[in-house]
Amino acid sequence: MNDATGILVIVSGFSGAGKGTLMHELLSRYEGYALSVSATTRRPREGEVDGRDYFFLDREEFEHMISEHAFIEYARYVENYYGTPRKYVEDQLASGRDVILEIEVQGAMIVKRQYPDAITVFVTPPSAAELRRRLEERRTESAEVIAGRLKRAGEEAELMNKYDYLLINDDLQESTKKLHDIIANAHARMSANEEFVARIQKELRT
Amino acid sequence: MNDATGILVIVSGFSGAGKGTLMHELLSRYEGYALSVSATTRRPREGEVDGRDYFFLDREEFEHMISEHAFIEYARYVENYYGTPRKYVEDQLASGRDVILEIEVQGAMIVKRQYPDAITVFVTPPSAAELRRRLEERRTESAEVIAGRLKRAGEEAELMNKYDYLLINDDLQESTKKLHDIIANAHARMSANEEFVARIQKELRT
Repeated sequence: MNDATGILVIVSGFSGAGKGTLMHELLSRYEGYALSVSATTRRPREGEVDGRDYFFLDREEFEHMISEHAFIEYARYVENYYGTPRKYVEDQLASGRDVILEIEVQGAMIVKRQYPDAITVFVTPPSAAELRRRLEERRTESAEVIAGRLKRAGEEAELMNKYDYLLINDDLQESTKKLHDIIANAHARMSANEEFVARIQKELRT
Repeated sequence: MNDATGILVIVSGFSGAGKGTLMHELLSRYEGYALSVSATTRRPREGEVDGRDYFFLDREEFEHMISEHAFIEYARYVENYYGTPRKYVEDQLASGRDVILEIEVQGAMIVKRQYPDAITVFVTPPSAAELRRRLEERRTESAEVIAGRLKRAGEEAELMNKYDYLLINDDLQESTKKLHDIIANAHARMSANEEFVARIQKELRT
């Protein structure tokens, strides 16, 4: 009943908030979603698959794409580029799929400016104590890395007000359902129903 | 988990869209809602109950309330006043209930300006043809009255873009669920979680 175009869903959140698991669960439980895959010039880590985890490009390819405005947003961290290829996102939206874009806070704001009808969702654990606990539980990371992530979380928290929705990720199943509901609801927004509105306005004029 | 304050839900829609039945169904199927009751100076019609359908006031009482800013909005149609008493709405919101306010388009915009976090929902049948059919089905109304309602619907349709959500009321049960979902989702908006955000920001600063 709603217009046929998909909705762009921008998901950010603290490292340790469980975004990755949440995205994976959303895509495995529900139909109609597409996950945007980032491109990067960094080397694949063990177990990472090209086209699933990232599109692994060399520097020349990446810079060529920049020159062709083929990224919605891109950034350079340390020595490497990271970016969101535009074509995949737009093709999927046009085909009616809702596209999930997991991206950090600065990139999220850049994307939102280009796609004002996108919805932005910030994922957080129920408390800072729980965030710390989850980061420490991983055990693979040094105290220094954990401290760095908590510091970064503090910076991100100052920008979380800019998001449309807050998703408090306590229980994975519940949070997945909630994220799905938020997106389903976005299809009921007036802005996602312009075709319907134009039609009934026209019908009522005659 | 979300902040404890209720959300104000402003519902408008074409006469014949089934708003009344929808509100009734929402309140009977789900907990936690309060329906705002308008005040009016017009006489009660047969079967109307004071405090349920309207608060029936005399002109002096109504004008006294106007002078005390006791209405969120009010208007005068023909010889009578109609208004939304402020106290009931604010008491219910403070107690954590979501307040449903069924109101016509002009009033809705006045209320939205005072309560920017309110959500606005426009209810419509699936098509103009279906609206005409529903109005004709009532049989109690003359062709002239029906024509008047359709003309009014045309005017309202020109303002429907200003609403946050569109609810295409095809099936009552489905639409009731959808309205409930729209409201439940509004509690996940960042603006409905200011206490949580302030707390986690503070926790992460220390």
